[in-house]
Amino acid sequence: MAAPRILTGPEVAAHASRESCWIIVHGKVYDVTDFLDEHPGGSKIILKYAGKDATEAYDPIHPPDAITTNLPVEKHLGAIDASTVAKVVKEVTAEEKTRLALMDARPPLENIINMHDFENVAKAVLPAKSWAYYSSASDDEITLRENRMAYQRIWFRPRILRDVAAVDWSHTILGQKSSLPLYISATALGKLGHPDGELCLTRAAGKHGVIQMIATLASVSLDDILDAGVPGQPFFLQLYVNRDREITRKYVQHAEKRGVKGLFITVDAPQLGRREKDMRMKAVDDDAGAKVQEGQADVKKDQGVARAISSFIDPSLSWKDIPWFQSITKMPIILKGIGCAEDAVLAYEAGVQGIVLSNHGGRQLDTARSGIEVLAEVVAALRLRGYSRDKFAIYVDGGVRRASDVLKAIALGASAVGVGRPFLYAFCAYGQQGVEKAIQIFRDEFEMNMRLLGAKTIADVVPAMVDTGSLKSHVVMTPEDNLFRDTYQPLGLAKFKALL
Amino acid sequence: MAAPRILTGPEVAAHASRESCWIIVHGKVYDVTDFLDEHPGGSKIILKYAGKDATEAYDPIHPPDAITTNLPVEKHLGAIDASTVAKVVKEVTAEEKTRLALMDARPPLENIINMHDFENVAKAVLPAKSWAYYSSASDDEITLRENRMAYQRIWFRPRILRDVAAVDWSHTILGQKSSLPLYISATALGKLGHPDGELCLTRAAGKHGVIQMIATLASVSLDDILDAGVPGQPFFLQLYVNRDREITRKYVQHAEKRGVKGLFITVDAPQLGRREKDMRMKAVDDDAGAKVQEGQADVKKDQGVARAISSFIDPSLSWKDIPWFQSITKMPIILKGIGCAEDAVLAYEAGVQGIVLSNHGGRQLDTARSGIEVLAEVVAALRLRGYSRDKFAIYVDGGVRRASDVLKAIALGASAVGVGRPFLYAFCAYGQQGVEKAIQIFRDEFEMNMRLLGAKTIADVVPAMVDTGSLKSHVVMTPEDNLFRDTYQPLGLAKFKALL
Amino acid sequence: MAAPRILTGPEVAAHASRESCWIIVHGKVYDVTDFLDEHPGGSKIILKYAGKDATEAYDPIHPPDAITTNLPVEKHLGAIDASTVAKVVKEVTAEEKTRLALMDARPPLENIINMHDFENVAKAVLPAKSWAYYSSASDDEITLRENRMAYQRIWFRPRILRDVAAVDWSHTILGQKSSLPLYISATALGKLGHPDGELCLTRAAGKHGVIQMIATLASVSLDDILDAGVPGQPFFLQLYVNRDREITRKYVQHAEKRGVKGLFITVDAPQLGRREKDMRMKAVDDDAGAKVQEGQADVKKDQGVARAISSFIDPSLSWKDIPWFQSITKMPIILKGIGCAEDAVLAYEAGVQGIVLSNHGGRQLDTARSGIEVLAEVVAALRLRGYSRDKFAIYVDGGVRRASDVLKAIALGASAVGVGRPFLYAFCAYGQQGVEKAIQIFRDEFEMNMRLLGAKTIADVVPAMVDTGSLKSHVVMTPEDNLFRDTYQPLGLAKFKALL
Amino acid sequence: MAAPRILTGPEVAAHASRESCWIIVHGKVYDVTDFLDEHPGGSKIILKYAGKDATEAYDPIHPPDAITTNLPVEKHLGAIDASTVAKVVKEVTAEEKTRLALMDARPPLENIINMHDFENVAKAVLPAKSWAYYSSASDDEITLRENRMAYQRIWFRPRILRDVAAVDWSHTILGQKSSLPLYISATALGKLGHPDGELCLTRAAGKHGVIQMIATLASVSLDDILDAGVPGQPFFLQLYVNRDREITRKYVQHAEKRGVKGLFITVDAPQLGRREKDMRMKAVDDDAGAKVQEGQADVKKDQGVARAISSFIDPSLSWKDIPWFQSITKMPIILKGIGCAEDAVLAYEAGVQGIVLSNHGGRQLDTARSGIEVLAEVVAALRLRGYSRDKFAIYVDGGVRRASDVLKAIALGASAVGVGRPFLYAFCAYGQQGVEKAIQIFRDEFEMNMRLLGAKTIADVVPAMVDTGSLKSHVVMTPEDNLFRDTYQPLGLAKFKALL
Repeated sequence: MAAPRILTGPEVAAHASRESCWIIVHGKVYDVTDFLDEHPGGSKIILKYAGKDATEAYDPIHPPDAITTNLPVEKHLGAIDASTVAKVVKEVTAEEKTRLALMDARPPLENIINMHDFENVAKAVLPAKSWAYYSSASDDEITLRENRMAYQRIWFRPRILRDVAAVDWSHTILGQKSSLPLYISATALGKLGHPDGELCLTRAAGKHGVIQMIATLASVSLDDILDAGVPGQPFFLQLYVNRDREITRKYVQHAEKRGVKGLFITVDAPQLGRREKDMRMKAVDDDAGAKVQEGQADVKKDQGVARAISSFIDPSLSWKDIPWFQSITKMPIILKGIGCAEDAVLAYEAGVQGIVLSNHGGRQLDTARSGIEVLAEVVAALRLRGYSRDKFAIYVDGGVRRASDVLKAIALGASAVGVGRPFLYAFCAYGQQGVEKAIQIFRDEFEMNMRLLGAKTIADVVPAMVDTGSLKSHVVMTPEDNLFRDTYQPLGLAKFKALL
Repeated sequence: MAAPRILTGPEVAAHASRESCWIIVHGKVYDVTDFLDEHPGGSKIILKYAGKDATEAYDPIHPPDAITTNLPVEKHLGAIDASTVAKVVKEVTAEEKTRLALMDARPPLENIINMHDFENVAKAVLPAKSWAYYSSASDDEITLRENRMAYQRIWFRPRILRDVAAVDWSHTILGQKSSLPLYISATALGKLGHPDGELCLTRAAGKHGVIQMIATLASVSLDDILDAGVPGQPFFLQLYVNRDREITRKYVQHAEKRGVKGLFITVDAPQLGRREKDMRMKAVDDDAGAKVQEGQADVKKDQGVARAISSFIDPSLSWKDIPWFQSITKMPIILKGIGCAEDAVLAYEAGVQGIVLSNHGGRQLDTARSGIEVLAEVVAALRLRGYSRDKFAIYVDGGVRRASDVLKAIALGASAVGVGRPFLYAFCAYGQQGVEKAIQIFRDEFEMNMRLLGAKTIADVVPAMVDTGSLKSHVVMTPEDNLFRDTYQPLGLAKFKALL
Repeated sequence: MAAPRILTGPEVAAHASRESCWIIVHGKVYDVTDFLDEHPGGSKIILKYAGKDATEAYDPIHPPDAITTNLPVEKHLGAIDASTVAKVVKEVTAEEKTRLALMDARPPLENIINMHDFENVAKAVLPAKSWAYYSSASDDEITLRENRMAYQRIWFRPRILRDVAAVDWSHTILGQKSSLPLYISATALGKLGHPDGELCLTRAAGKHGVIQMIATLASVSLDDILDAGVPGQPFFLQLYVNRDREITRKYVQHAEKRGVKGLFITVDAPQLGRREKDMRMKAVDDDAGAKVQEGQADVKKDQGVARAISSFIDPSLSWKDIPWFQSITKMPIILKGIGCAEDAVLAYEAGVQGIVLSNHGGRQLDTARSGIEVLAEVVAALRLRGYSRDKFAIYVDGGVRRASDVLKAIALGASAVGVGRPFLYAFCAYGQQGVEKAIQIFRDEFEMNMRLLGAKTIADVVPAMVDTGSLKSHVVMTPEDNLFRDTYQPLGLAKFKALL
Repeated sequence: MAAPRILTGPEVAAHASRESCWIIVHGKVYDVTDFLDEHPGGSKIILKYAGKDATEAYDPIHPPDAITTNLPVEKHLGAIDASTVAKVVKEVTAEEKTRLALMDARPPLENIINMHDFENVAKAVLPAKSWAYYSSASDDEITLRENRMAYQRIWFRPRILRDVAAVDWSHTILGQKSSLPLYISATALGKLGHPDGELCLTRAAGKHGVIQMIATLASVSLDDILDAGVPGQPFFLQLYVNRDREITRKYVQHAEKRGVKGLFITVDAPQLGRREKDMRMKAVDDDAGAKVQEGQADVKKDQGVARAISSFIDPSLSWKDIPWFQSITKMPIILKGIGCAEDAVLAYEAGVQGIVLSNHGGRQLDTARSGIEVLAEVVAALRLRGYSRDKFAIYVDGGVRRASDVLKAIALGASAVGVGRPFLYAFCAYGQQGVEKAIQIFRDEFEMNMRLLGAKTIADVVPAMVDTGSLKSHVVMTPEDNLFRDTYQPLGLAKFKALL
């Protein structure tokens, strides 16, 4: 390890070029000159902070230890004397002013009555880049929206005259008690949306008995999240498998040691999807004065926030790696991102403890089907192989906005349901309180829906309670005869007299 | 009973706090201090009238005897000397002025030609809260709209060259003569929409030979409604079953004694649905200056008008209670709110006289199917059990706006059809005359449709007259490729020359 | 017959009340006092012209001999001395001025390239009442639009590499040569749209070898139309059967004597449909200053133009009347307005020469299926009974706007297709020339489509050329999750730089 | 051949009438007087240039040798002395100025991230006529749009945990190596969109190893295109068969001699479709001051750019001609424009080497099905006849905008996919660089999609990777109940407080 050294602002500022590039992060100085070309997010964004303090830009989009892990120890140059660094006076843009005014004008939390409200507030109060990163999905975002719409193709067959004075929607998920039949699914880079990042989820989850799945790419470190939990608070861990398996081994074993209850290995992201909203955001940043440059059409551009986090993920991950995971941990292993019955069967036969039917919130392969649609074929295929719900868990995520969605999934055979963006947007909009309110809304909805369905407990939510006749119907409108439409004059209603 | 006492305005006004709260209702003074926390609509709304006359607010949303029934006799403090009560000068808001101007500008009644016209006028002339209460439905209001759209999935197969000079659409409903093959279904709190409330329905129904189903939660008392009927006018009674069965027993037996012809027990409302429009309305009232309050996220808010009426309903009602109902009344018993074949069979086997296939106008479980869709599976299931239309009645309600809808239901096996909101909106817009006009429009439509269908009587309306091939098709559009849509340039029509 | 008398304007003007009401029509004076209450269009419209010349109002909406036929001879008071009648100076309204300006600004006829163009021009240049009468359909106009959309559910299976240098789309319809595989179907009251009325059709049809079906309710008399034909020009006759069969007998036999080639008896109009656009138009006329009038809710209003022509039609017409028609004429008899296979079979067994699968352009029973959809079930049912296309004709009408629609119908088994409104709108917009242009467009489209389909003659247009897998699919969208829609932010395209 | 003569501007200008009409094209003078009435585009457009230099108008819409080929040698009058021709000062219209400003404001090429972006830019920067010609399709353009939408009815069934570190989407098409599993399909008249016309495609294709299909109606001559290729660059040739087979024979044999690798004979265009956008564009040009002209309704108008190129195509082409093609060339023969299984079988039995399932980009028979839909029935029918993918190629084109579309077609059995308009729009917007960028985007998308699908090579893209359950579903919405829609008030989201 390099001897602890104290550097000054001017010393660092002298290294502000591609030839010699130092940056300050969290009070430490690093020489990133050789790293410039390896940086997943491109060199340009680093050079913007060459010779300066990059902490504010670094924080929300990097795992906290990313720089120390990725940079050889000899490039860790020492501490900075903060008093010697020139303060940057940040100009507040007009856009930012509007954003802050909207933040002040948020609806009172008590007026929030459903998950859409949170998203709507988050859209208004998030910086444009954060919103683009969170909300975007791949290609035409068809799968993103299909995830929601698939639930609309399932209809209830409610039962009446069952004594539903007392209804109980608590549940056990992967052996852990949960006050709701859903868990908070992993979403990355929480600090892009709130200074406390994922801790908002942790604190609310601990208070209300809900399970949080921690993201590999959380803005807050695994330990900080676990430390923020109440005693006995259960957590799951979402895992992106690193090209360097040793990093992954340490990470997994550390999590297990700290008491994490389940390992959800993401298997649908050998490469991150092309998320055009995120890509456009990057383009907006850079195109001032840009020209069609002759001969440079091949130059790859930074492609939004997603790019910055993608190169840690190993595209060679395969079924052959499963035994290795089973050898390094005793945590239940769940494969997250199954999209058809064939792979569900492979997972079942590989001896893992469960799967998540998921398309990654529509962020990976566009026009992949929704988890809820895949569920029906998966349950059928596994039943043929002697599957029972007790021994193998089938989770579903994507598109859930109502307790009724969760109940539909459970009726169709899901063990539980993952909910990601709604909780993310809840804390982007209102911090920890937002997450608590979201949990409360789900509670209210579960109470109402279970009574109206005629189910006293989650075990009473059965297949006969749903009509899935239209679930597999993917309807695209035949193109409209627009001359006919334009010529047709719609009927009108009786006219009011003119007001004076 | 407390000795009759005469109190004065200032005496009452002295009790205007949470510690001691008196209110005046209908010239009587009540001490509601202890009742504040039990009030289904929350304490806040009562405290607004602490020490004052609350009659105007009380009237439209409470059954008339609610306060005397729910408050112990010792809290009935006595009569008020009206001359001593300070007159409240009510400010007319700009919104209210607009509403009154719209009332003056209503289309002449003769220009109303369909049920939608009534709804459109009602929307304009009702106070915002009343409109929210009447029009709202649960969650995403998908079932509310589906109720209407399901009828559009049924197509006619008309028959020609049958002598239809004379057509007759009169009918017998639960043994009672009706000039139409439909009955006026129960809707609550009529005085929110018209000072005469449900009496508008009673008077028009009596005049034109239509049957009215009286709501437990009518703004006008059962006796006042029955008193307003013409001799021999048939009524049905809709029943919310109280947690206190004795209250229910007295109510039912009183109705029977007064000649009510059928008891429709609501079975789809162990808890009222979350009706977000109604909830938002409440929020608008209260949020002036509200802040996200630390630590108060759990405080339940009043949730609109619906909340105020919900706690009378017993969520423990079950099939075991049916024999008790059969023991206390000889009226035919109909279970209102059946949503699948299984429950229809249970009802049939329980020995009741009929069922209403209904989802409560979309106000309870959202994404429950429409009554008209459920009808097909119910008829099929009951036929297997030897059902005949003579001995067991199957009614359908929800979404009916045209006589053609009614005929479709009858063709599919319904005994008759319930129509609620259209008549409600008719009297909100035009009082009793509106209801009469609505009946007349239905008459005109029945005459036309029966002729064009080739049916001389209701008995001639048979299954072969409808094509239900698409009835069970629940189509949700695949998310649009909106880049393609935005890029495509629609065809245009030939252009006119520029006008000078 | 009353002695020929010459009356003066002042004499007539003295009879301008309900008690004594004289009117002038086509230079003759009539006493219509006793007829006021029998007038199908109501008394009000007559009273508007009491004591005056009513010709201009009378003309477009009455068969020319309506008044002489319906009024006893003693009420025919004599001729008027035109010079003594006060000229009415007609004010030209602002609306009328706009209409006339639009007439001047019509697109040049050569710019009209499809049937929709005609309709679009007609909508702009027709008086509002005429447009309402022509374009309206019953109830929600669902069938009106479905007629068009059904064709979009049929897709072509084109054949290639057939020598299509010469293609021939001429055809024989009910034994008559036709230059197109379609006929001009009957539409009523042509003078509402053009001073020459139906003669525009006659002249264009004669010139281009197309067959016109003459409407019972044409504005131009049967003889005048026939007289306008070229030698040998074939005509069909559409028949509304009068309550007075003798009137019908004379009319039919006169037509046969004059050489009409086929009798199309309308069987889907025992009563005219409620056409709300037409009804609203009437309401607009009358509601100035109208009030909700106490006790008058039952007063029937005139219900638009349609009302004026409806009472001639006999609702008691039935299958028993068919032999009578067969006894009074040798013309082929076609039943127009069949809507299901059962009635097609009855017609076939009744020995008539054919049927028209039609819902009267959507103007009668709303949500009746389209003719093209019914065609499939009819052909199947008739085949079981040994039907051959040579001996029994199946026509289809409704919704045709393209030659491709006609070819689809023929592929599915239609003998030919009726086209009504497009030709009507063609002459409303451009007179006879418009109709000629419409015929030319159809010719161009037939040439192109037959080549591209790979059919040299109409006989080559066979079932294998169409894919009808979706024809019976009546899709109604599940109600939208509009909170999701409002929250979702659609993808955008690359942004242009700001223009200077 | 006429003796070389040098003419002067004034000499030519003297022949500027229908009686004697000379024009200058590419520095040569031609007497086109006798040709006026034969000109496929009509005489009017030629007369506009009578006595003048017509090169600029001639160039983009004629094959370069059209005039020398079609005009007898004696009408080739000689060369022009350019210095003697009066320069025409071209006025720049306001519309053109806007267009040029938009050209300057194009998004930087690096901001283009999908094919739609190119189309959007092209729409803005193309002259209106060029855009109309390129973008238009026949009749209602339903097939045009259906081509795109059909892909949305196919959903992916992705496979996970396959080592996809290395993925390879290169392919062999008709025996030729291709860096992508798609080829650039033929589009006509490239100079309407860019001065270099089709050479933009050639250069980009050569650089990136993509195969270009050359159009018979290219603006650049076959030889110029081939000359622009890099050594060994493979080309295909699209063929419109001329009425004069000798012209076709020479053309085909010349192409073969020059090394073209495949002959794609267009079989779906015995006549060009009616493309209304193109037709309207023509009408806009001509209608200044036009009137409905009495007696001239039959005069055929020029019908847009398409008309100008249509008369070379032989409508009598038939299956009998196939052996002749086989006799004149050894190039593989592909029939382009098959639309049903029956014709696919005929082609297979005729011994050609493959087919393109295509509807000509929606420009021919409207409501013909999309190639991707037809693919399923074709593969099934050919399998019954022993077809193997090695021996008979099935290509698909129309509607492809994403690499995922290509993979769907390949999964369903396509040998490769043709992509036309996207590359055309790419060069209209950005020239050769645009095409290169388009290729790069496809590359990026193939990499991502193959990884996410779990396919290492094109051979791994198999039927089980797609769900085609909805592919044949042609859904047309039932007409909306618009009174209900207008009356229904959609739910809203929580309201923000007023901003100060």
